[in-house]
Amino acid sequence: MIIILKKGAPKNEVDELCRSIEAQNIKINEVKGEHTTILGLIGDTHKVDMEAIEAQEIVESVQRVQEPYKGANRKFHPEDTVVSVGGASIGDGNVAVIAGPCSIETEEQIVNTCMQVKAAGASFLRGGAFKPRTSPYSFQGLGDEGLKLFLKAKKATGLPIVTELMSLAHIDLFDEVDVIQVGARNMQNFEMLKELGKCGKPILLKRGLSSTIEELLMSAEYIFAGGNTQIILCERGIRTFETQTRNTLDISAVPVLKALTHLPIVIDPSHATGKYELVMPMSMAAVAAGADGLIIEVHNNPQKALCDGAQSLTPKHFSDCMDKCEQIASVLDKKVGTRQ
Amino acid sequence: MIIILKKGAPKNEVDELCRSIEAQNIKINEVKGEHTTILGLIGDTHKVDMEAIEAQEIVESVQRVQEPYKGANRKFHPEDTVVSVGGASIGDGNVAVIAGPCSIETEEQIVNTCMQVKAAGASFLRGGAFKPRTSPYSFQGLGDEGLKLFLKAKKATGLPIVTELMSLAHIDLFDEVDVIQVGARNMQNFEMLKELGKCGKPILLKRGLSSTIEELLMSAEYIFAGGNTQIILCERGIRTFETQTRNTLDISAVPVLKALTHLPIVIDPSHATGKYELVMPMSMAAVAAGADGLIIEVHNNPQKALCDGAQSLTPKHFSDCMDKCEQIASVLDKKVGTRQ
Amino acid sequence: MIIILKKGAPKNEVDELCRSIEAQNIKINEVKGEHTTILGLIGDTHKVDMEAIEAQEIVESVQRVQEPYKGANRKFHPEDTVVSVGGASIGDGNVAVIAGPCSIETEEQIVNTCMQVKAAGASFLRGGAFKPRTSPYSFQGLGDEGLKLFLKAKKATGLPIVTELMSLAHIDLFDEVDVIQVGARNMQNFEMLKELGKCGKPILLKRGLSSTIEELLMSAEYIFAGGNTQIILCERGIRTFETQTRNTLDISAVPVLKALTHLPIVIDPSHATGKYELVMPMSMAAVAAGADGLIIEVHNNPQKALCDGAQSLTPKHFSDCMDKCEQIASVLDKKVGTRQ
Amino acid sequence: MIIILKKGAPKNEVDELCRSIEAQNIKINEVKGEHTTILGLIGDTHKVDMEAIEAQEIVESVQRVQEPYKGANRKFHPEDTVVSVGGASIGDGNVAVIAGPCSIETEEQIVNTCMQVKAAGASFLRGGAFKPRTSPYSFQGLGDEGLKLFLKAKKATGLPIVTELMSLAHIDLFDEVDVIQVGARNMQNFEMLKELGKCGKPILLKRGLSSTIEELLMSAEYIFAGGNTQIILCERGIRTFETQTRNTLDISAVPVLKALTHLPIVIDPSHATGKYELVMPMSMAAVAAGADGLIIEVHNNPQKALCDGAQSLTPKHFSDCMDKCEQIASVLDKKVGTRQ
Repeated sequence: MIIILKKGAPKNEVDELCRSIEAQNIKINEVKGEHTTILGLIGDTHKVDMEAIEAQEIVESVQRVQEPYKGANRKFHPEDTVVSVGGASIGDGNVAVIAGPCSIETEEQIVNTCMQVKAAGASFLRGGAFKPRTSPYSFQGLGDEGLKLFLKAKKATGLPIVTELMSLAHIDLFDEVDVIQVGARNMQNFEMLKELGKCGKPILLKRGLSSTIEELLMSAEYIFAGGNTQIILCERGIRTFETQTRNTLDISAVPVLKALTHLPIVIDPSHATGKYELVMPMSMAAVAAGADGLIIEVHNNPQKALCDGAQSLTPKHFSDCMDKCEQIASVLDKKVGTRQ
Repeated sequence: MIIILKKGAPKNEVDELCRSIEAQNIKINEVKGEHTTILGLIGDTHKVDMEAIEAQEIVESVQRVQEPYKGANRKFHPEDTVVSVGGASIGDGNVAVIAGPCSIETEEQIVNTCMQVKAAGASFLRGGAFKPRTSPYSFQGLGDEGLKLFLKAKKATGLPIVTELMSLAHIDLFDEVDVIQVGARNMQNFEMLKELGKCGKPILLKRGLSSTIEELLMSAEYIFAGGNTQIILCERGIRTFETQTRNTLDISAVPVLKALTHLPIVIDPSHATGKYELVMPMSMAAVAAGADGLIIEVHNNPQKALCDGAQSLTPKHFSDCMDKCEQIASVLDKKVGTRQ
Repeated sequence: MIIILKKGAPKNEVDELCRSIEAQNIKINEVKGEHTTILGLIGDTHKVDMEAIEAQEIVESVQRVQEPYKGANRKFHPEDTVVSVGGASIGDGNVAVIAGPCSIETEEQIVNTCMQVKAAGASFLRGGAFKPRTSPYSFQGLGDEGLKLFLKAKKATGLPIVTELMSLAHIDLFDEVDVIQVGARNMQNFEMLKELGKCGKPILLKRGLSSTIEELLMSAEYIFAGGNTQIILCERGIRTFETQTRNTLDISAVPVLKALTHLPIVIDPSHATGKYELVMPMSMAAVAAGADGLIIEVHNNPQKALCDGAQSLTPKHFSDCMDKCEQIASVLDKKVGTRQ
Repeated sequence: MIIILKKGAPKNEVDELCRSIEAQNIKINEVKGEHTTILGLIGDTHKVDMEAIEAQEIVESVQRVQEPYKGANRKFHPEDTVVSVGGASIGDGNVAVIAGPCSIETEEQIVNTCMQVKAAGASFLRGGAFKPRTSPYSFQGLGDEGLKLFLKAKKATGLPIVTELMSLAHIDLFDEVDVIQVGARNMQNFEMLKELGKCGKPILLKRGLSSTIEELLMSAEYIFAGGNTQIILCERGIRTFETQTRNTLDISAVPVLKALTHLPIVIDPSHATGKYELVMPMSMAAVAAGADGLIIEVHNNPQKALCDGAQSLTPKHFSDCMDKCEQIASVLDKKVGTRQ
């Protein structure tokens, strides 16, 4: 961390600042320039409160040199984290595939769709029981009842399931859920993250619509700090001024994150684009960029879907998409889903 | 609502779509063009699921004519909503002022700061007991203990208090809190909004960092739908590419919201800019633009603040800021805070 | 185009509006709702001035149904446009590769680099003689002298060259240039676009940093309107709040543009990311998403580059990148550059 | 400037880097940390090429301490710059008002409108002869003919005129123009900026739609570097995801720029919002925030305007707006336009 002091900062105030920093077991190296004095902090600064220092009258600005996250940082944990649950893995060098409908609607719909995505090679099932919807007048999901139907699909397919938790009040219902999803809108619901740090289940953490990559890692750090290291990061599109797509899928987040962290990264082309015809090309692009997984919406009858039908693939389209992703993945010596 | 059909949409499918819409008590008027057929929906469409229609194969696009919110809509409720609590009001034609420290730290700090902001004319107190912080290593607030200290400041000043709720698990602690704040990061924590719709207390709802004005109103609609009409909207800066300010304060949201909704609008120049020296000019601008209130961070010793010191005013600066805002407000025939 | 009228719009004013529109050879169909009247415009509306209609007191809003561009619109020109020049093509179903240094520095540098990118399979050369730099104190390019050196590289390799035009005052110097590049900062330099519409050379048009896809197509339409149909579109990253990459590469622009227009699309991963280590994964992703070409910065000694060294590949890295892209392209039955 | 070196950077390469920097008359102070070595550069670094340093293999990152602009920097020129021309001034401690129609259409329209804005207290006239329009099918302005009509309005009113230059090819026509406007889309048309640095007339430089404040100042620096110090900066809205307004007016740019530079700042509420009903509140807000001027679109018949009618005030509304701004300005001890 580097502290740039204001011109003419009184020596006694600078000394006081230095003492307060050194008390945190950090060494300080002072560089005196013509117009500026710089303090270089040496040691483990990830817990130093940058904002508190910036609030000092004598401080012009503060800049980090080291990342403010430690648990998620590849520098301190060079090997890839592999999240394994229910017989499937993410982060093991292949491309995991999480597929299923946006929301769970009926037993027939969820079981049928899940059987078909399994047949096409999906390694995990997704499905929403509690749905975050912009409007209170939109379908909010079947809730508890939906979870029960999802468990039937889990049983029928033998695949692990991923579903979103929208409130800690529901967590007791998630006993048989394999991976708990934290939605984009809850990425900075810090009280939830703290609890999930203690829950003992893998967490799929979606990047917020306007969150930076560093903020995503800081939210992962909240889970880490609680003792849970089974975290899957998910890029699902960021908000820009462009209107042709629902959001802008930031595929460059894949190689950026692979360098910064040891956690696996999955891409959600369905929510990012909002249009089913863009799901296949963006899935292929994500695999080509090195993603550890894909999370794709599939509905056995998209036109009748109670939510997000416009972005859902049919099982047939999904199977075609898997074929193409498999070919792209083979260029990187990877397998896709359960395909061998 | 207007539905634009794809060229060559089969008549039987169009008929089926029309029947499903008419079943919701909505009339349809068809316009046949050379290349395009348009369906104009007539009636109360705020509950019609736009996404479900867009998912139909035969539909090119759907566009709303009426707003998707009803409770918060000025068209259906032309008079301004006035939120009154603990002897103070927001939305009554004057400029309410909510002031206090970012976080509650000690009894001396909170009581002393609150006495001073009261003396300068603040009509509400603010202070954080539960703090949303990007880093798990930053000070997280005193929690329950902080709330108790805040109640002492409430008692000492006789002013109503505003503080943030970060988890429904804490709500029992908020009994004596006058206004519950929903932070920007929880604006789309829909499960929380649903509960707050039933809580019987005024809610101060902050706009998310990348939320549109319409989304803010839809989140207010969640609270409305639960029966709680005491809602205060708050603009606190949106995220852009600019780095000189922490966020970009969207002051135009004030006149835009005044036209769209009857709910009062307050502006938070402290969080929006992140720099204390910008708080006064932006407060003055907000008042000039017609804001119903301001929410300003004040600390009796900003350099020792445990959070957001860089954006906190001293009590002296706050008093100067109030003087200027009072003069601006008089141009609009308004009073500021408790100043007469 | 759909016009939504305000409630209670006087009949005579509506009639006058309708007459003024019908005078443009457009039919109008009126839909009267309970609260709203809608006018549906039928015919070729791409020249109708939407803004002028929106300015009418009686008009609530105006929405386009058809795209405002015609020459670039795939609906009116279903076949792909192929741009061919100097023995190379873009848009022919393969992946064209434009490579070379950010700026032309010395004869040795430009000729040597170009020979090496040719050897690795590049089909076009790139190099900047006139450089758009944020700071007036940065290296501004060799200008006329640089163009002369670039022509030596053209002669040495036999490959067509692409270089940026920054002012119409320089156009006489571009006689032997094969493809004229319009930079992101000049995408809406409409006077330049008008002239380039008459210049008889292919144009590589870069998307502006905050331009929408529709605006990019409207800028292409300016060139089209002048009679020049040889246009290559280029996505080079858009500005967002993310700071890990210089810009955010919008790869979804590839399939979106392929659907909207018949013009070829190339991707510039070098400028989008600003980091050489991201160029290979993003190139692979772009090819996987269906891009018609890549434009990549290569420097024979990136550390000594006078501009953008941090994002330049060495010839060796470029060759590796081509290998990978070739494998990805083969999944789509495409070739890359001059590789067979 | 601070250079952070990669761990394990070879000493001979570090030495070479240091020598190349010292050759630019800059001293280097080295700070060796446990994990990181930092080089602190001391001296006048505004011409040091940050990018070239960042491209070095041994460099982790580079951070500026001093601003990269010098001519526009308040640190080196503490007094406010006052731009005076044709009997009017901007930056003299009052609020200059530039008003007139978006585009010049007829002699009657421009002269009549200008007489009315003069009567209401405008100190400068605005009007477009060359219009930047997104669509080539929209009205492009009357060009040379329009300028001639504008000169009649100048003569009739005796007020100085401001109009946009879209191409250096037109500059000879601008002889009697008092202030040359560079539009948002040309803010980084560097070749134009270089020429305008030599033109001897005041320049009104609009901030680009997605330009940072620092980039705006760097573009001003291009004009400065040519010897022209008569520069007026203009904030006219930045592009965000919000759709209720055409752009988001960044009013905080006013106090930010007042601190960073000595150049005057004017605000354009008409283009920023795109809606006439927002012009008055945002004008008042801008004055309250300390703007040196306003640039407002006024049309004697907005419904018949050939461009941007929806955002134009009538002369009556403009006069009301001036009344309110005058009252706000008096709080800051300022006058508005020619009002005394």
